[in-house]
Amino acid sequence: MTSLRDVNPRVRAIRVCTQSALLSLSEHITQGAQHPFKEVIDVSSGDSHRAGMKPISFVRQVLAVCLHPQLLKDDSLPLDVRRRAQSFLQACDGESVGSYSASSGLLHVRQNIAEFIMKRDAGVPAYSKNVFISAGAQRALMVIVKLLSSGEGQGQSQTGVLTPLPCPHTLPMLLDEAGVKAVPYRLMEERGWAVDLNELHRAILSSRGRCEPRAIYISNPGNPTGHVQDRKSIQDVIKFAAAERLLLLVDEVYQDSVYGQNREFISYKKVLFEMDEEFRETVELVSFHSLSCATAAECGLRAGYMETVNMDPEVMHFVDTMLCTDISTPVTGQLALDLMLNPPKPGDPSYDTHTQEMLLTRTTLFHNAQRALELLNNLPGMSCQPAMGGIYLYPRLDLTAEIREQAEILGVEADVLYCQKLLEEEGLLVGAGQQGGPTGSHHLRLRILVPPDTLEMVLSRLCSFHIRLMNTDVGRSLTDKDKKENLHQLKS
Amino acid sequence: MTSLRDVNPRVRAIRVCTQSALLSLSEHITQGAQHPFKEVIDVSSGDSHRAGMKPISFVRQVLAVCLHPQLLKDDSLPLDVRRRAQSFLQACDGESVGSYSASSGLLHVRQNIAEFIMKRDAGVPAYSKNVFISAGAQRALMVIVKLLSSGEGQGQSQTGVLTPLPCPHTLPMLLDEAGVKAVPYRLMEERGWAVDLNELHRAILSSRGRCEPRAIYISNPGNPTGHVQDRKSIQDVIKFAAAERLLLLVDEVYQDSVYGQNREFISYKKVLFEMDEEFRETVELVSFHSLSCATAAECGLRAGYMETVNMDPEVMHFVDTMLCTDISTPVTGQLALDLMLNPPKPGDPSYDTHTQEMLLTRTTLFHNAQRALELLNNLPGMSCQPAMGGIYLYPRLDLTAEIREQAEILGVEADVLYCQKLLEEEGLLVGAGQQGGPTGSHHLRLRILVPPDTLEMVLSRLCSFHIRLMNTDVGRSLTDKDKKENLHQLKS
Repeated sequence: MTSLRDVNPRVRAIRVCTQSALLSLSEHITQGAQHPFKEVIDVSSGDSHRAGMKPISFVRQVLAVCLHPQLLKDDSLPLDVRRRAQSFLQACDGESVGSYSASSGLLHVRQNIAEFIMKRDAGVPAYSKNVFISAGAQRALMVIVKLLSSGEGQGQSQTGVLTPLPCPHTLPMLLDEAGVKAVPYRLMEERGWAVDLNELHRAILSSRGRCEPRAIYISNPGNPTGHVQDRKSIQDVIKFAAAERLLLLVDEVYQDSVYGQNREFISYKKVLFEMDEEFRETVELVSFHSLSCATAAECGLRAGYMETVNMDPEVMHFVDTMLCTDISTPVTGQLALDLMLNPPKPGDPSYDTHTQEMLLTRTTLFHNAQRALELLNNLPGMSCQPAMGGIYLYPRLDLTAEIREQAEILGVEADVLYCQKLLEEEGLLVGAGQQGGPTGSHHLRLRILVPPDTLEMVLSRLCSFHIRLMNTDVGRSLTDKDKKENLHQLKS
Repeated sequence: MTSLRDVNPRVRAIRVCTQSALLSLSEHITQGAQHPFKEVIDVSSGDSHRAGMKPISFVRQVLAVCLHPQLLKDDSLPLDVRRRAQSFLQACDGESVGSYSASSGLLHVRQNIAEFIMKRDAGVPAYSKNVFISAGAQRALMVIVKLLSSGEGQGQSQTGVLTPLPCPHTLPMLLDEAGVKAVPYRLMEERGWAVDLNELHRAILSSRGRCEPRAIYISNPGNPTGHVQDRKSIQDVIKFAAAERLLLLVDEVYQDSVYGQNREFISYKKVLFEMDEEFRETVELVSFHSLSCATAAECGLRAGYMETVNMDPEVMHFVDTMLCTDISTPVTGQLALDLMLNPPKPGDPSYDTHTQEMLLTRTTLFHNAQRALELLNNLPGMSCQPAMGGIYLYPRLDLTAEIREQAEILGVEADVLYCQKLLEEEGLLVGAGQQGGPTGSHHLRLRILVPPDTLEMVLSRLCSFHIRLMNTDVGRSLTDKDKKENLHQLKS
């Protein structure tokens, strides 16, 4: 009865990202019979535990007690674990994590988030009333984008959002669903994927007559690029947003994963509050953070938050209305978010273990980034900008004419074909780059926050495949010595 | 910068339900200083633990182990708890509940849901590929409604959905957000809120020229009415849907809470599969179930599912696409859903405790329904149809001219005013009925699945208030004897 032509045209227009097709292929391979590898390794996504990272004990212990409060009496659990669980239970209706929370989240958690933000930003005030918890940062972003969407129709009146190229691979789909037009601005690969002011101006000019740009989306630390903006770059973007009267949508979900030398995370909000009144009191900003993307990521528990700055309270009322239709954000996720932002303090029984676990994760990230970068940059036809934060590397592929022709015949992008072959031949799933780059430019998205021995397997499979592939053409120009060195490096 | 007039008109058009205003008032009262009651009792919502019900031990124990797998070694936990947790962990990527699941849910859980459905429907086949898990039934419904929405514009081409009056209080908001027009059909109060075929025909005629009806929404067991349809009534609705080529959206979230004598829950799908081929093979149906509404409700963990029947696979592809933007349903919720549908079996170590806990809840529901019904029907100006299922009673208020006039002056519905006063004077929060009934017809939504001593407090507060209010007018026509009897009954 309901046939394809009855489906909402806007839904039909959603462009499913290549990631979905690759994941299906991966499933198909896993379920299939013979393949030359033990199992598929997936380093295409942000999913930490899928990639083999371990959860943080403190978070899990507190949640276990919240779910099964008899554990409050279990002396084998650290006292601070039980105390934290107790305070969480008191913050829940009926003292149960099985109760709904208010649509914007548990007040207790919103207050703790506001405190975290204030501490992070060296005292810039933050208020719980401006903090909205949702089932992930993606959900929060969807609420804001839908709020802005002029929705009906296309053309000049359609809402536009400036989006970076490359951007998080889930973003285009989200904008499609919200009926909003993406206005891409290129990041500067040769400058480590920095934001370029001229490019922002070019993008906004390009939108004239096509849509009405009302917001700019920024990912900092950059997903998938790993670029981390400095203060000057942030100021520039804020001034640009102010001049063009754009709402700043700042994806800061990798804020705790900055490892570049002499580079630290500075929030847009902090920079804004250091600027003159004309900016500080007028520029509208929404900052997103997520439980799924932090060093202590818990993707499956689903929680994130957004903080609004300088937003009209009447507009914020509708943010709450939109969240109402979700009824409630998962409570276990909200509590995990609180624990992530407010870890044990020095002197607490769990402090040492927690600090060690976090340090191990961060050290792994740092070392993996170095190790992978060096190796990738030694491969023929591959070059990678150093990353300063986040969990991905985003190497560029200069593919042979042969594979590019093959891709054209098959009607896919060459990097998608590359990923398919890599998956089929080596059982390694990496993300394909985003289309829209200059001709011939292709990329891979490679998660590097994985256990070190997994990284070795990943690099080994990637290099074997890559050298085999390039051998057909570019590879031939390498001397045998080069190849031996590549393999040697890989095994060391 | 972004001002009210920039907000998406569709978002601005969302009618927030009266429930939100009452909840705000309740919060305000709780935070305020002096009031003549100890605390507000909330029986307006479906939130089980908020209302004082206890979680089911088996569910909580398994989830605690899943979150903190070291508990797998804890001998004080029943063996079946640990085994179930083990099998869940194996079903999760990286053996962690902190991993994303596929957008339609964990395959393991979808398979278990399909098995549950098949058992429930005495062998009618069910397939995991037709089961979509989401963060609550509301979210699943939103996906389907958006899929159907012709979205742009209004008038004849706008998608319409036939909706019962009264309906779940969250439904109008959901339809507003999806841009879909509600076409109300009245339920027959005097026949225990049964669905009436003539009324369905009247409703569809009324939609002519106003919208294009493409689905009918049914709540069975009825929320908030407590009506449970028999086989004949379900057949009638199916035939009507077939004749009018409507998609059947069946909210069956209270399927495990049927307690009416000689009444059992029969699913729409089962009835459909008993009918002739012309129906069985063509009528499209989506059935919704939820973790939040069952006897073992866990609202805060967020999970529900829908099963599609006779839906075009090409259309189902877009169901999956829409769920993709949520990225993943909370994994703890998915596992709780599995546990709810597949409880311990006879012989399992947890079987006896679990059975007792469930039985206690069901007995409480049954006894409370009887107790409340008898008392409400003895109050002047109140009459209540007996319920057969669900967790609400939906009594009718015949209010005095005085209060109706007062409401008119204040510009609110009389039942909303009633609820406000009840909340302010007695600290009791009940839901206000839905507008659109015949003049002078007002209702309350009263949760009855609460601990028995809470119910006594609820009834005591409600009766005190009601008699006081009615005394001003209708109450005067009661003899002193009547009043004494009311109070006596209340205290017994």
